[in-house]
Amino acid sequence: MSMARPAGEREIIARIRRAAGNSDDLVVGIGDDCAVYRTYPGRVSLITTDTMVEGVHFDLAWHPPLELGRKAAAVNISDIAAMGGLPRFALLSLAVSPATGSQWLDAFMAGFQAVLAEHDVVLIGGDTVQSGHESVFSITLIGEMAEGELVTRKGAQAGDVVLVSGFLGEAAAGLALCRLGQGQDIAWQSLVAAHLDPVPQVALGRVLAASGMVNAMQDLSDGLATDLAHICAESGVGAVVAAEKIPLSPALCRAAETCDHSALDWALSGGEDYHLLFTAGEQQVVPLCNLVREKTGRELFVVGYIVADGGVFLEEAGRRREISYRGYEHFR
Amino acid sequence: MSMARPAGEREIIARIRRAAGNSDDLVVGIGDDCAVYRTYPGRVSLITTDTMVEGVHFDLAWHPPLELGRKAAAVNISDIAAMGGLPRFALLSLAVSPATGSQWLDAFMAGFQAVLAEHDVVLIGGDTVQSGHESVFSITLIGEMAEGELVTRKGAQAGDVVLVSGFLGEAAAGLALCRLGQGQDIAWQSLVAAHLDPVPQVALGRVLAASGMVNAMQDLSDGLATDLAHICAESGVGAVVAAEKIPLSPALCRAAETCDHSALDWALSGGEDYHLLFTAGEQQVVPLCNLVREKTGRELFVVGYIVADGGVFLEEAGRRREISYRGYEHFR
Repeated sequence: MSMARPAGEREIIARIRRAAGNSDDLVVGIGDDCAVYRTYPGRVSLITTDTMVEGVHFDLAWHPPLELGRKAAAVNISDIAAMGGLPRFALLSLAVSPATGSQWLDAFMAGFQAVLAEHDVVLIGGDTVQSGHESVFSITLIGEMAEGELVTRKGAQAGDVVLVSGFLGEAAAGLALCRLGQGQDIAWQSLVAAHLDPVPQVALGRVLAASGMVNAMQDLSDGLATDLAHICAESGVGAVVAAEKIPLSPALCRAAETCDHSALDWALSGGEDYHLLFTAGEQQVVPLCNLVREKTGRELFVVGYIVADGGVFLEEAGRRREISYRGYEHFR
Repeated sequence: MSMARPAGEREIIARIRRAAGNSDDLVVGIGDDCAVYRTYPGRVSLITTDTMVEGVHFDLAWHPPLELGRKAAAVNISDIAAMGGLPRFALLSLAVSPATGSQWLDAFMAGFQAVLAEHDVVLIGGDTVQSGHESVFSITLIGEMAEGELVTRKGAQAGDVVLVSGFLGEAAAGLALCRLGQGQDIAWQSLVAAHLDPVPQVALGRVLAASGMVNAMQDLSDGLATDLAHICAESGVGAVVAAEKIPLSPALCRAAETCDHSALDWALSGGEDYHLLFTAGEQQVVPLCNLVREKTGRELFVVGYIVADGGVFLEEAGRRREISYRGYEHFR
């Protein structure tokens, strides 16, 4: 339930949320990366659904069908990873434009299936219909995990440290480079790959969830400013992000010069990085980083801290300004 | 995973099906109304997803948003009913056209939510994105049931009797009347309601599944000719349908005259009736009809029988012709 989304969608989501109900078996309803329901005592299923619309979420001019199929699977698996779950089953619903040929569909399916296989996810259902103009893909992912390990957006506490699992802004820079016609340039390979073929952080999500040290978590789909605002809203807290701590890759900084765009802006509001964003108590940061390094060989990046008062603020050169929800919505 | 679908979609579904995998916990994969997986010994979850595209599956010219929201919920609940399951949770993914206003969305959500409430289904998640041209709705429904009561499309046996749970062709006639601009005429109320606001057969599906007397079942979404062909293909059998046994309502026959269309053709190939289509051993028909009458007050209709050789055939005035898959696909 998280993808880059245009302005006004939060209002519609609020509408859906008001219509939502409750149930004894429902552990997490609308407002997190997945809905979560209990299948038997101590065990939960996670479920998420996303829709990708041609011309809104992907551009066939530069997105090859294989990579698009991979991305369609990856961004949904990422929602399961965002709560620490193990992805299990997928369903794919295709509304295919009249212009879509069978070679294109075969390549899309090959990419979709390859990412499922990388994560031992089984395609168990789906439907296909004809669309009038643009192609629309809806993917549903089902995961499972121990209820006790579940990490939601709700648990952030004042004093927590805010961490991310990798360089930010890469996908947004890759998109900008594709738009400039530089998507094939070898110099931008890592950035373009981040846009075309993002990697869901399943193994890391499971290590973080099982550690018991993470208080709140989600994946970075709309950009740090918006996604951290989601965690703050759900947890009833605020956050301060330090501009100089945000991990920016050398390639991103070079691309920022080429595109005459702020690297920091991409990192804060570009979206679609699909890294994990999470909070942990200050005392847990060192053991958590050690655990993650040992289990996955990965480094974590501290980017800020949680405060009691609401809103997400950026500290830069001694000044502080609010950046809540300045994500993909804002910059369209 | 069943809705009226245009020509060529079976080919794409075959593509998805070839890409599908397997798992120890997977009870039913692609090719039935729902995918089914085991959540713990003896208990299964059912999951189905459908996509509805503006201009393909619904026409805003005559489909009021409240009824459209009701139908979006109903046709997915019907997939759970088609296997005898209890619907539990729903997810709604909206790709909304720029022309869609908030009043329209409120009415759609009210209808969607009303049908969920009628069946104690809880809306637990969803997403919304902007579409370029037409609105697209994707709905995911989750149900559950005892694994031992599950009825799939696979169990039909030569000698079985084929039954349906109500009048056929009503929805197709209602659609034809709407297209003629007669959707508001009180004389056609039952037919138009069948098109705009179909009723999923949840209680009946559960009685049939729990009876242990039903060998194969699905819901009638594409029309008797196509849906019975699905059961035959999955079961490795054929079927003979007797034209004079197909239940046609007086209103349908009147509408056929008005529209200069064959009532039988609507019943065989119109689609979207969302009645249940199922088979049972000949000895079970009387006890099954008695049980259903006692538990639900409903009548069942015998329309044909299963044979060993493949294909679906219609017997009419002593002649027999093949009608396999002559459903919505054929008559578009």
